[in-house]
Amino acid sequence: MTQNLDRLSALPLRDSLRGRTPYGAPQLDVAVALNTNENTHPVPEDVHAAIVAEVTEAARTLNRYPDREFNALREELARYLGHGLRAEHLWAANGSNEILQQLLQAFGGPGRRLLTFVPTYSMYPLLAAGTDTEFVAGERTADFGLDAASAAEQVRRHRPDVVFLCSPNNPTGTALGLDVVRAVYEATEDHRALVVVDEAYAEFAHAGTASALSLLEGRPRLVVSRTMSKAFALAGARLGYFAAAPEVADAVRLVRLPYHLSAVTQATALAALRHSASLLANVEDIKAQRDRIVAGLQELGLRPAVSDSNFVFFGGMADSRTVWEALLARGVLVRDVGIPGHLRVTAGTEAETTAFLEALAGVVAEGAGTPSHA
Amino acid sequence: MTQNLDRLSALPLRDSLRGRTPYGAPQLDVAVALNTNENTHPVPEDVHAAIVAEVTEAARTLNRYPDREFNALREELARYLGHGLRAEHLWAANGSNEILQQLLQAFGGPGRRLLTFVPTYSMYPLLAAGTDTEFVAGERTADFGLDAASAAEQVRRHRPDVVFLCSPNNPTGTALGLDVVRAVYEATEDHRALVVVDEAYAEFAHAGTASALSLLEGRPRLVVSRTMSKAFALAGARLGYFAAAPEVADAVRLVRLPYHLSAVTQATALAALRHSASLLANVEDIKAQRDRIVAGLQELGLRPAVSDSNFVFFGGMADSRTVWEALLARGVLVRDVGIPGHLRVTAGTEAETTAFLEALAGVVAEGAGTPSHA
Repeated sequence: MTQNLDRLSALPLRDSLRGRTPYGAPQLDVAVALNTNENTHPVPEDVHAAIVAEVTEAARTLNRYPDREFNALREELARYLGHGLRAEHLWAANGSNEILQQLLQAFGGPGRRLLTFVPTYSMYPLLAAGTDTEFVAGERTADFGLDAASAAEQVRRHRPDVVFLCSPNNPTGTALGLDVVRAVYEATEDHRALVVVDEAYAEFAHAGTASALSLLEGRPRLVVSRTMSKAFALAGARLGYFAAAPEVADAVRLVRLPYHLSAVTQATALAALRHSASLLANVEDIKAQRDRIVAGLQELGLRPAVSDSNFVFFGGMADSRTVWEALLARGVLVRDVGIPGHLRVTAGTEAETTAFLEALAGVVAEGAGTPSHA
Repeated sequence: MTQNLDRLSALPLRDSLRGRTPYGAPQLDVAVALNTNENTHPVPEDVHAAIVAEVTEAARTLNRYPDREFNALREELARYLGHGLRAEHLWAANGSNEILQQLLQAFGGPGRRLLTFVPTYSMYPLLAAGTDTEFVAGERTADFGLDAASAAEQVRRHRPDVVFLCSPNNPTGTALGLDVVRAVYEATEDHRALVVVDEAYAEFAHAGTASALSLLEGRPRLVVSRTMSKAFALAGARLGYFAAAPEVADAVRLVRLPYHLSAVTQATALAALRHSASLLANVEDIKAQRDRIVAGLQELGLRPAVSDSNFVFFGGMADSRTVWEALLARGVLVRDVGIPGHLRVTAGTEAETTAFLEALAGVVAEGAGTPSHA
């Protein structure tokens, strides 16, 4: 698009967008793509067959608008989540990005403030900008952690209208303790902010990690967002959702575009939910690969963060950009999330994990990017 | 959702949303639903088979994010539109509502103004509100027409940043002359507004009606939006798109959510475009039914507007709400668009058209809503 830049600047573009570049990881054609935290396990055969059957049926009436309230899908999502949730507690949209955008349209906007704790999911500031919500970057500890006292203090100081807590956090991979969620919610009591826990990667957490879903009861300003892109291996289908008090869904109904969720999307998601067993079996394998990566990185003298997700964030490199390039030259694409000395790699299949670890071992042996054994 | 209203008002909802109700026509279960301008012709068999085949293929890689640039779809859309357009001129989103929302996010927003001419598509003010764009309701003549001189004068007076021209206009059904589009574009020359012609219903226009696509060359601030919901009978698939100078697509790339268009949506739309012949054959039948409705309404002493779309707007009733209710009691759902003395009816299949005309004849014979033969 560079050749169009002059012509773009001649358009009546909003001032806040001038000079920006579009969001998105490079979509490169490489043998081993471990840069976007996709679920690299192929869609299981039974899930594929179910999707085809469900879409075949839905396609017969595509001339009609879809169910604007996607009732069947909300019921199935509630059943999947458990925790006593019912359809009225659920809402869905085209990916969790649209979920978060709708929440900001309803509860953020001009004159309002979003607080989150960086480094975190890089779409948050863009979603704030897209809805004219002021973005406040709260702080984490030097090792990217966040404790209840610090989070609550920052909430009281900034008085946000909306708080996004990413757990497990992207790009660092570590889950938040529920004490942090509780403390943030309590700290917003006097000015009644919306507290959103983004649990896109929750299904990959270590056994025993509690979900913020368990905190919803009695907390009408708490929202837990999820996605089918990761554990359900449906990144291509774009289905994000949230669970919250029914009135939060009512608020979002005021800003959602009518019929925002297509009949084909509803059919695809329904089919996958009804065949969650084989998808969740893959999750167990991905967790095993994730743990292999953590162990492998440690053996190479690198420093992986604790991961409750399908990716591993690691430091310990003097020049992470050189390591990124050397891996790419070996056909392995990982993510440079812009934090010096660190990279992020997705846990894929066993073969992809092996390819990554072997490539990285080669890079380390050559001394490219020279791991700093400080 | 009424029982949740108290709880909704206890949430930190934005002030501008308080007291609002969600947009959307009633989704009632009636025998003959002619209220949302759907294409009521069933999806043709060859199109259905093509969609199933394309989705079957796409579903194998749903674990991966979709092509963020939907290149194949943009190429096929350009081919369909003709006018020398190429993929770089095209952009698509989940319905034309999302297209218009993205354009307002890029070119509207706080401190900016959208001008349109009412009565027109009822989503425009909601899209303005959702993006914090000031909404200015321009005027039409008493018979809902719009001429070039009046449109240009109103543009110079209001100095909008964005203009939406709906052609054929919803809910009145009449296409705008290209002289109006040219005049509006010229009137925005000094302050460089974006001029969007919403041609959602263009395929239903009478033979010889020119599309604003023919004006794109040399007009970098002109955008023509279309949808596959109507002529392509794909309301359930949610596929809107626009054609414009490539830099307009670049501007929208700055605000679109990454991967906003699912792989399933891309597959469905591609299949339908590749089988447009049988879909466009249905369009000819719908136009014939539309003309039957116009003639039938005239015979009943009512006053239909000139229609270039798949619906007919008609006046001549003393109490259109009573007529709406009497039609519903006979199993025919039409749209009360909130303009006293007028209703809007979708042109459906031959059987639906007959059912509507017979039901309306019965209503008129009974004197319910008493047509005013003024």
